[in-house]
Amino acid sequence: MKNFTCLDDVPDPASLVKQALALKKQPLQYDTIGKGKRLVLLFFNPSLRTRLSTQAAAQNLGMHVICMNTNSGWSLEFEDQVVMNGQSAEHIREAAAVVSQYADIIGIRTFPSLNDREKDYSDFILQQFTRFAQVPVVSLESAIRHPLQSLADLMTIQELQTKSKPKVVVSWAPHPKALPQAVTNSFLEWISTSDAEVVLTHPKGYELSPMFSQKLQPVYNQNEALEGADFVYVKNWSAFHEYGKVLQQDLQWTITLDKLKHTQQAKVLHCLPVRRNVVIEEKVLDSPHSAVIQQADNRTYAAQAVLKNILE
Amino acid sequence: MKNFTCLDDVPDPASLVKQALALKKQPLQYDTIGKGKRLVLLFFNPSLRTRLSTQAAAQNLGMHVICMNTNSGWSLEFEDQVVMNGQSAEHIREAAAVVSQYADIIGIRTFPSLNDREKDYSDFILQQFTRFAQVPVVSLESAIRHPLQSLADLMTIQELQTKSKPKVVVSWAPHPKALPQAVTNSFLEWISTSDAEVVLTHPKGYELSPMFSQKLQPVYNQNEALEGADFVYVKNWSAFHEYGKVLQQDLQWTITLDKLKHTQQAKVLHCLPVRRNVVIEEKVLDSPHSAVIQQADNRTYAAQAVLKNILE
Amino acid sequence: MKNFTCLDDVPDPASLVKQALALKKQPLQYDTIGKGKRLVLLFFNPSLRTRLSTQAAAQNLGMHVICMNTNSGWSLEFEDQVVMNGQSAEHIREAAAVVSQYADIIGIRTFPSLNDREKDYSDFILQQFTRFAQVPVVSLESAIRHPLQSLADLMTIQELQTKSKPKVVVSWAPHPKALPQAVTNSFLEWISTSDAEVVLTHPKGYELSPMFSQKLQPVYNQNEALEGADFVYVKNWSAFHEYGKVLQQDLQWTITLDKLKHTQQAKVLHCLPVRRNVVIEEKVLDSPHSAVIQQADNRTYAAQAVLKNILE
Repeated sequence: MKNFTCLDDVPDPASLVKQALALKKQPLQYDTIGKGKRLVLLFFNPSLRTRLSTQAAAQNLGMHVICMNTNSGWSLEFEDQVVMNGQSAEHIREAAAVVSQYADIIGIRTFPSLNDREKDYSDFILQQFTRFAQVPVVSLESAIRHPLQSLADLMTIQELQTKSKPKVVVSWAPHPKALPQAVTNSFLEWISTSDAEVVLTHPKGYELSPMFSQKLQPVYNQNEALEGADFVYVKNWSAFHEYGKVLQQDLQWTITLDKLKHTQQAKVLHCLPVRRNVVIEEKVLDSPHSAVIQQADNRTYAAQAVLKNILE
Repeated sequence: MKNFTCLDDVPDPASLVKQALALKKQPLQYDTIGKGKRLVLLFFNPSLRTRLSTQAAAQNLGMHVICMNTNSGWSLEFEDQVVMNGQSAEHIREAAAVVSQYADIIGIRTFPSLNDREKDYSDFILQQFTRFAQVPVVSLESAIRHPLQSLADLMTIQELQTKSKPKVVVSWAPHPKALPQAVTNSFLEWISTSDAEVVLTHPKGYELSPMFSQKLQPVYNQNEALEGADFVYVKNWSAFHEYGKVLQQDLQWTITLDKLKHTQQAKVLHCLPVRRNVVIEEKVLDSPHSAVIQQADNRTYAAQAVLKNILE
Repeated sequence: MKNFTCLDDVPDPASLVKQALALKKQPLQYDTIGKGKRLVLLFFNPSLRTRLSTQAAAQNLGMHVICMNTNSGWSLEFEDQVVMNGQSAEHIREAAAVVSQYADIIGIRTFPSLNDREKDYSDFILQQFTRFAQVPVVSLESAIRHPLQSLADLMTIQELQTKSKPKVVVSWAPHPKALPQAVTNSFLEWISTSDAEVVLTHPKGYELSPMFSQKLQPVYNQNEALEGADFVYVKNWSAFHEYGKVLQQDLQWTITLDKLKHTQQAKVLHCLPVRRNVVIEEKVLDSPHSAVIQQADNRTYAAQAVLKNILE
């Protein structure tokens, strides 16, 4: 595995899930594999879980880690043939090449603009960075994908599933702010490699990019979608068609204990952070339905499996 | 020792001081005890000494350390049954549980509001964090206590005392800003476990919480209090009764070389940072009276003793 | 070597360059020399390359590293006999002494005011810090020098030179902002220890401090200066005489492919970040003329040689 930016970078996703679950059992089994190697994490946008879990993963492999919060004060130019007499002090060509001198692997987080759909969906910043980097690049969430999260999600489903073909419902939920589509996009990409039956439910207007929703027909009635679910992946996203817009914040879509009654005692997944009583009712989060902390735990071993594969 | 948030968490304070002093002599004696373990430090408020000394302590024990400055951009909700459609993006229940997945020990710094006395004195944030954390929690200074500082203070007194029952004067001093009562509260809590004679002096109106000043009757005449002192612990704090107020900044209370004449060549303690010529005269800080750098040095071994005890 | 703040701190610069080049060949050769030792990096001003490369260097030697971004919220007082009732919460005397308790070596970055020339050119902040520190201090760029950069520059020239006495042209180039003179000052200081023929070219008004330009007579015609050059060190700086001023931003001084025609296929050096098509034409940066990434790479081994010498 050279880079880890999307599913296509992974030769065998099922095997990667398996390796991650094995690392969870013995996290320090390969604690010298990264000796003398360095992971540099560049955060163009804030991060808590990803920052902690990816550092933990690298440390478990014996790697050095350096974190840079570049969200203040490192303004990059991504376009060529620009006379750089404005705000940007450095070009991505130099930036990516320079960081590559100090890193064996680079992790990079970058959020979408939610303004310029075409640019966001070309995954412009991550692609430019990967293009000019001289070492492997790991996405710590990009404009349109969050593959480390998706890998942890698949681990969690595999740990908790009680049947070989579980019903996994991906449900939109309300949120006061405009959020990226990245987590959902990426989950749909990864879950498609499993045997799960996937159902997508959201209000009209929240249709995802065909690039990710593919042949999935959304169910606009949430209760109907939830019927018999084994897993409910809850997530807010802003509109793709009316790009970046919050069309409504209908609390009827909040996942409640009541709504879970017609599921198969479904496990509820969410990438966190989660706004209680807006996205998911607190009674759900504090009940055995919730698998969100287990998901967060799995982030470490997902990152560790990815780093280990790149190091090898 | 499970947590380290206040004196009550420590089964034998005298033994902890002794262990810390022993670690100071051989800092790297237990440099593999923390191998493969991780300390996550969460700073809800800025820190210099605590951040450096606690990292140094953990590194001396072979632990990995991850620092998070959460003072910008990680807005937590601490109350239950709240519809989280405002500023806070994450609830303490998830936050504490999630960080616990990546840490073997969590350190947390949080300052008081200085507005809401009842909430501050319930040590709300630290208590909520400790309640929902799944691993041991170390206070890096909370709304009302700074136990790592107090442990270093006791080490310093023990190193410098020339009699078994020294006179320790805790003196208020002026400062332009409203500061917490945490350092003084905590020092009074810890020094009460020693054989020292403790005298508290401050202007009227600066009486501390009875929870910490206990049976100590303040002496309102600073010169009288200083008479024959072996140690002077200098510290500003804002008012407890007129909560969080700066009642005066009387430079008559500044600790000067002149005022120390009637002491037993007292050693002067302060947790730092110290405003020269406001809190303490520079002539004092640059004289053999000053023990403030030694105190700062002891912070490392105080933290190291605490971490070692928790790891064991 | 005790400190590393300017050329005078270095007993044998040529040997240091040689050691750095040897470390580049085997970066992990001395990976236990720093075991149990700690490098604390204090950034009073932002840093990317220096922060990453110096951390990498320390890790390669087995040292622990702690980074502090002090550019927000650690306001120091540097003058004595000041009543500190203003913005500054801590005095350099305590600050430097305290950090020395937690560090075996301290690295410090501090930029010039570009207002007060006398103070800047006394290298006030670095000097005060070094004066009160109790452990060796390494400059990560100060008001008037950037010695780690200069050491990496000399390494790069040595790697690329094809004759024993290369012609090295130091050329001013335009930039929209007022930049320090530090990089150029320092390069002139260090290159003077080599056999190179040094030519300095810049527009009238951009004369450097005699402290650094010494006997060098500037050539005001850039094309004339570039004639037959083996190396072109490109750098913008603000005026020294009209201190801190941007006198002009004449794009006629931008280094272009065209201008390099009359050189000896000169290698182009720049400390980065570089504004493309303002300081240097992109065609130059993307051509074999450019040695800027190699320079950046050498930063790690420059820092490593310095740290190794101090540790020994």
